[in-house]
Amino acid sequence: MTEEILEHEDEEAFGVTDRLIAEVLDAVEAQDAVTIDALLDPLHAADIAHLIEQVDARDRRDLLTVWKGGMDGEILSELDESLREEIIENLAPAELAEVVRDLESDDVVDLVEYLDEDQQEQVLDALEATDRVAVEKALTYPEESAGRHMQSEVVRVPEHWSVGETIDFLRSDIELPDQFYHVILVDPRMKPVAYATLGRILSSKREVPLAEITEDSFNTFHVEDDVEDVAHAFNHYHLISAPVVDDDDRLVGVITIDDAMTLLDEEHEEDMLRLAGVGEGSLSDSVLDTTRQRLPWLGVNLVTAILASGVIALFEEVIAGLVALAVLMPIVASMGGNAGTQTLTVAVRAIATRDLTGSNVWRVIRREVLVGLLNGIIFALVMGVIGYLWFGTMMLGVVIAAAMVINLVVAGLAGTAVPVLLEKAGVDPALASGAFVTTVTDVVGFFAFLGLAAVFLL
Amino acid sequence: MTEEILEHEDEEAFGVTDRLIAEVLDAVEAQDAVTIDALLDPLHAADIAHLIEQVDARDRRDLLTVWKGGMDGEILSELDESLREEIIENLAPAELAEVVRDLESDDVVDLVEYLDEDQQEQVLDALEATDRVAVEKALTYPEESAGRHMQSEVVRVPEHWSVGETIDFLRSDIELPDQFYHVILVDPRMKPVAYATLGRILSSKREVPLAEITEDSFNTFHVEDDVEDVAHAFNHYHLISAPVVDDDDRLVGVITIDDAMTLLDEEHEEDMLRLAGVGEGSLSDSVLDTTRQRLPWLGVNLVTAILASGVIALFEEVIAGLVALAVLMPIVASMGGNAGTQTLTVAVRAIATRDLTGSNVWRVIRREVLVGLLNGIIFALVMGVIGYLWFGTMMLGVVIAAAMVINLVVAGLAGTAVPVLLEKAGVDPALASGAFVTTVTDVVGFFAFLGLAAVFLL
Repeated sequence: MTEEILEHEDEEAFGVTDRLIAEVLDAVEAQDAVTIDALLDPLHAADIAHLIEQVDARDRRDLLTVWKGGMDGEILSELDESLREEIIENLAPAELAEVVRDLESDDVVDLVEYLDEDQQEQVLDALEATDRVAVEKALTYPEESAGRHMQSEVVRVPEHWSVGETIDFLRSDIELPDQFYHVILVDPRMKPVAYATLGRILSSKREVPLAEITEDSFNTFHVEDDVEDVAHAFNHYHLISAPVVDDDDRLVGVITIDDAMTLLDEEHEEDMLRLAGVGEGSLSDSVLDTTRQRLPWLGVNLVTAILASGVIALFEEVIAGLVALAVLMPIVASMGGNAGTQTLTVAVRAIATRDLTGSNVWRVIRREVLVGLLNGIIFALVMGVIGYLWFGTMMLGVVIAAAMVINLVVAGLAGTAVPVLLEKAGVDPALASGAFVTTVTDVVGFFAFLGLAAVFLL
Repeated sequence: MTEEILEHEDEEAFGVTDRLIAEVLDAVEAQDAVTIDALLDPLHAADIAHLIEQVDARDRRDLLTVWKGGMDGEILSELDESLREEIIENLAPAELAEVVRDLESDDVVDLVEYLDEDQQEQVLDALEATDRVAVEKALTYPEESAGRHMQSEVVRVPEHWSVGETIDFLRSDIELPDQFYHVILVDPRMKPVAYATLGRILSSKREVPLAEITEDSFNTFHVEDDVEDVAHAFNHYHLISAPVVDDDDRLVGVITIDDAMTLLDEEHEEDMLRLAGVGEGSLSDSVLDTTRQRLPWLGVNLVTAILASGVIALFEEVIAGLVALAVLMPIVASMGGNAGTQTLTVAVRAIATRDLTGSNVWRVIRREVLVGLLNGIIFALVMGVIGYLWFGTMMLGVVIAAAMVINLVVAGLAGTAVPVLLEKAGVDPALASGAFVTTVTDVVGFFAFLGLAAVFLL
């Protein structure tokens, strides 16, 4: 397996090569379920999901029809949300029951949370009673909360136990989670008080009390904590797993680092796409869905562009008097827009990582304004000379230089202040900063350049 | 404004509140090392690092002077690179030795890799002989390789051992890593053949052979594998730790998920900042450093903006004949630029997650072009009507509508093709796509609009 992964990764994604995809599609066309099984069986569920996402909608439908029964819970969990729903719709209740039975509770929650009620009911009916209770409980917590994303399967022991008692307990017939990295110590009222890593337990003598080998740092989360905060805390404190408690401080679940990593990854993706005005969406969305996702931001942009054009319209006579202004004005706006985007991206990222806070916001704004001033002066000199050489009017060079400095300073100010104010107002700065900042730099750019031209050139 | 931000962020910036920062700075001013100790001692190293990053350069210098001896390896590891260097420079060799002694080899590598040779030598001299060998070996691997980021401390046992033998070994006097989650089974030639989770080992009877409880899926990486690929594989396969082997397939280290999470986070940050034309940098960089980081991209943007202005200059006479064109032309360019940015961001992200590959690139391009066409038609109708109503010329509406459709289709095409081609050419698509795509949409936007106007309006 090693060799193969390494070789393939050079050209292709993980364990899925183009050749494999082609072979699978050939087998689909030949309705040859046995060959498909032989090709897909050695693959990790994540790779099978990746392959299903890679092929187009028609091939996907055919594959799933021919390969009936191949789908399992692990693969379903790995799939893009948009595809999951489609596949669940096509499964018979008995198949669906089979599929979800072996999943941890957090994976089941992840599968069912966005299904319609009928489908959700079907999946829940397929679960064993205790699992069902855990999943239903998790669904009562807010959408982006720790309670939604925790797994209810935890390994907990009384705080007074020894290493030996713990090992005997783990060796008894109890059902253990697939993966666990800590044993959580609880008091008689089920409140988590500390945890011990499995490594420390394994390397200690049987008679050692657990309480002596617990970790110094111990973070617990509340069921209603925002998962984004939880994911950042995992990254910040290098956590591997962390207990989740309810209002009574009772241990109700655990969040593990692999889930935190997925959450952090999703949040990054969201920030990156939102900064570019793409709400959500994946490569497997249809043309119509994608068009619909992109449209609102383009609509916002049209409004702001028209606003900027309105500023230009104020100076129609000035432009009629000197057409060179029309040639040069997009440069001032474009430089301001770029400087603003640089600043706001740094600010949005720093807000997300909690690096930009109340204690340093004024310092950061001052820095960005100074950076804008310095770069403004540098590019003003360059552009002033170009403007003069191009159109032979000294004053035109001076006007564009002055407009450039003004716009880059404004870009530094708006690029920091807008995201900070949006965050303060409870609006995701990644989503709305771009539109605001480029509107500011367009309007200021055109107004400064054309306004100065009106005063000094005509 | 600050006040409210403070309140809000007090809850969110991990263990560092603004009140705490203020108290620490007061103690610094009073040269009161005891109070600083009392305030910082209860904090996690990551929080202390966060606090050091939050205060401005002068306060930082004063804090580190007054709090001499407080710095340790953990805090240093958590700090921004730019600050780390500064602090190491100010430590005496003996202090430095004290600081690095307790770190895992990967953390030491991370500390020393960007130091100048003198400083590096000082740190290496401070290490014990075996650690020194491990660190020096790691430094021979390429910068962004698995070998650089692995820790050499691994827990490995012969493949024929039982659970009992393994536990006895772990309980013996050997030195174990701070954190480990698997025991790696090796053959007599030190080649890793499988691994068992500590959870499985703990829950199995002593006489069970390890070989019976190993994990189904087992990924190994090569010392020269790119860490970015490694991080994505961790996320894709939900790995917790993975062995790293050398050219002879011998086990030389292990990469753990907390490192992979940090790497993935850093890569995201890089992609996000590069997309916005910000090479690197953090909030604690100085004004001059920041100005220098932002300058190259603004320079590139100036060149492309001048190119676009050159296109406008071709049509100076057309604009002189109808100034409304100067008012409307930025709208066409701006809409194209936005649509192009949406598409290229989705493409850059999909390339990073290995979702956009050779097997679906044509499908994605077709989709993006169709999306551009649909949104182009929608906004062409809107803008056509606005253009007509604003300036009272039917043909002006038709011209801007046609230019809009052309530019949004081109945006869809360029937004996908440019990042894919850059990736193929070995250039980071996050870094260069933006400049190329907006140049294309600016040039095409101005050319289509003014060109059509020249033909149909004059």
